[in-house]
Amino acid sequence: MNPSGLDSLIEALRCLPGVGPKSAQRLAYHLMQHDRSGAARLGESIQHALKAVRHCQRCNTFTELEVCERCLSSRRDASLLCVVETPVDMNMMEQTLAYQGLYYVLMGKISPLDGVGPRKLDLDKLLSRATDGVVREVILATNYTNEGEATAHYITAMLKTSGVGITRIARGVPVGGELEYVDSGTLAQALRERKSLGMT
Amino acid sequence: MNPSGLDSLIEALRCLPGVGPKSAQRLAYHLMQHDRSGAARLGESIQHALKAVRHCQRCNTFTELEVCERCLSSRRDASLLCVVETPVDMNMMEQTLAYQGLYYVLMGKISPLDGVGPRKLDLDKLLSRATDGVVREVILATNYTNEGEATAHYITAMLKTSGVGITRIARGVPVGGELEYVDSGTLAQALRERKSLGMT
Repeated sequence: MNPSGLDSLIEALRCLPGVGPKSAQRLAYHLMQHDRSGAARLGESIQHALKAVRHCQRCNTFTELEVCERCLSSRRDASLLCVVETPVDMNMMEQTLAYQGLYYVLMGKISPLDGVGPRKLDLDKLLSRATDGVVREVILATNYTNEGEATAHYITAMLKTSGVGITRIARGVPVGGELEYVDSGTLAQALRERKSLGMT
Repeated sequence: MNPSGLDSLIEALRCLPGVGPKSAQRLAYHLMQHDRSGAARLGESIQHALKAVRHCQRCNTFTELEVCERCLSSRRDASLLCVVETPVDMNMMEQTLAYQGLYYVLMGKISPLDGVGPRKLDLDKLLSRATDGVVREVILATNYTNEGEATAHYITAMLKTSGVGITRIARGVPVGGELEYVDSGTLAQALRERKSLGMT
């Protein structure tokens, strides 16, 4: 009953997580009726981001460069590698001002229920990054959820024979909690009290 | 802390109603990490819709033509004009299969709290549509909310001297509704607007 261009837009909006048929229709009507300039900006931003945004070859976070600015910085301690699930988690770690090392962003977690196994997470990339000869300690800062714990266990097993120290941020983070919602003080404590899981 | 292309995308996503900074970030990460093909489709659909979708010159609904198919149809009774707030409401009316006339879609309602007055609704367009000489009855099917009622009152006053009949869809107990669960306002109206079933 809608013109086809509008129907395509409604269908396309459903790629956004949490948007079902009714909300998609409402979003589309809103964009077409009340915010055409916002819609134009959104369309352009999506297409620009798709072209420009890729993954840092070293830390795997989003960047527009081959290697992101943080990985290139000479001020960071390259012997420390902090493994986090998402760029949001990396930002949370940065906000503690308690960490000066580098990062590796998994862009996910091992989650069999969602069909994400170790291969889909491309942990080989982490393996080669962690065993580049410069990294001395890998700090596992995945969430203290079941999936985050499983991911940490898997990475620990993977790196066990590599000769690199492996630590886990302390369980100061509430069990079942997610980094994104923890205050920086708690997170700083958890970082300071990280505990060894293998050789140190 | 995000690359600029990603930041622009996050900012642009906030044009969607109900999307704040945190959800915008999550949506952007989702699109860039997990659904690039969906994002590409969304970007294209937005830009296509912006070019293709406009308002029907007669009924004001969304269409890709000058005048929409429904307005051009010879099967519809052009002497009836049903005024609704949104295309969704028009679809609801169509689903009743009880109406064969034409529509006028306001694309909003008079709502002083949101800064929408009669001028912003472009009611002049409705006035010239309703007084084209063919329309004999304008059926007001705006919502029975405060804003919908205000809109219906305003349109009634506007058309009063035009010689066109003006009606309002009935208000009362919903079909299948039980008195026990109907709010007292609705029940009071249903009582006041009771209709004769025989001699009274």
